[in-house]
Amino acid sequence: MPDLELVTYDWVPEPPRGFVRDLRIRWALEEAGLPYRVRSTPFDDRPPSHLAHQPFNQVPWLVDGDRTLFESGAILHYIGGRAPALMPKDRHEEITQWLFAALNSVEIATMPWGFARFMGRDKAEEPWESMTVPRLKQVDAALQGRDWLAGDFSVADILMADVLRFADRFDGLAECPACRDYLARATARPGFVKAHDDQIAHFEAGDAARAEG
Amino acid sequence: MPDLELVTYDWVPEPPRGFVRDLRIRWALEEAGLPYRVRSTPFDDRPPSHLAHQPFNQVPWLVDGDRTLFESGAILHYIGGRAPALMPKDRHEEITQWLFAALNSVEIATMPWGFARFMGRDKAEEPWESMTVPRLKQVDAALQGRDWLAGDFSVADILMADVLRFADRFDGLAECPACRDYLARATARPGFVKAHDDQIAHFEAGDAARAEG
Repeated sequence: MPDLELVTYDWVPEPPRGFVRDLRIRWALEEAGLPYRVRSTPFDDRPPSHLAHQPFNQVPWLVDGDRTLFESGAILHYIGGRAPALMPKDRHEEITQWLFAALNSVEIATMPWGFARFMGRDKAEEPWESMTVPRLKQVDAALQGRDWLAGDFSVADILMADVLRFADRFDGLAECPACRDYLARATARPGFVKAHDDQIAHFEAGDAARAEG
Repeated sequence: MPDLELVTYDWVPEPPRGFVRDLRIRWALEEAGLPYRVRSTPFDDRPPSHLAHQPFNQVPWLVDGDRTLFESGAILHYIGGRAPALMPKDRHEEITQWLFAALNSVEIATMPWGFARFMGRDKAEEPWESMTVPRLKQVDAALQGRDWLAGDFSVADILMADVLRFADRFDGLAECPACRDYLARATARPGFVKAHDDQIAHFEAGDAARAEG
């Protein structure tokens, strides 16, 4: 019986499929070779107990025995602590730095930018356009001449690659060849492929359950 | 001679003063009682060496001997590792979780929201209005019945309080009494007061240098 339980929605609409944040955690657990099970929590009619695990009413969270942990960055940091191959001791601070950077320097820009694109806002009037494209070019510069962010592949690469996937979805990497190469390297890994397939299958099973329901 | 060096701009325009992210680090170093010095890097005409320390051309970064570290969340985590009073071992994962939450669940919403308000955008047309106000109410619910996020005052409180200060600046805490009380408790601490005063004085010294220059 696996001791790790990853909790995600039972179902989501089509657009976010393949991008729900449990993917980051599935990917890390696959890379780490840690056994885990996935448990569903309702997307519609979220029970009050949801907030006890995730105060922002989102997913995922991870249960490890008596411990429950939310925030994808924090969960990746925790998995890195259990899987030294994904966060070697001598790179601990550097990898932590890139975990924060992926979220607070990159995703904090790509999220409102992608959202504006998704809403079909006029690029010329959209301040995030002029902030996010240069930010992605800075990631591109940081990636030049290296395969991964901090030595070997680590939890920071899982997070940065997943953040860049979202930017790529809205064609944000057009001028970022190093980011595109990095993303291709990351998403070719069997751990990503399995995590992605499993998430898609999980929500398809949710479709089937709703059709029956 | 202090072994910790905090690097920030030599000068910034008026609006961000009191909110430049070196404040979070000054505050933590004051709370930790760790000796440090502050070094300036040019705000105008940033030298290429800036990018070697901070790939997004921002501040702050922290130098500790041979190590240089950027990202305010990562630096706070690092200081917590050196100052167990701010990140006790038995609360390590919980505090890490709240560090990430302050940035990736709260600031990721308040940043585009505050920016839209700063630009004078119409609230009714601004999607961040309908996302950010409920998010802040979730923080309010999480804070109810406790003084601090994870046991005693920790680096997570430094980060969350600083994120909430930004929301408060644009009157985002009007419906969040627990956040307002929390913020009042946090900013009454001598460590915050000194950090804030020191940042203001630092940029005023920058004004004087420019006037002479």
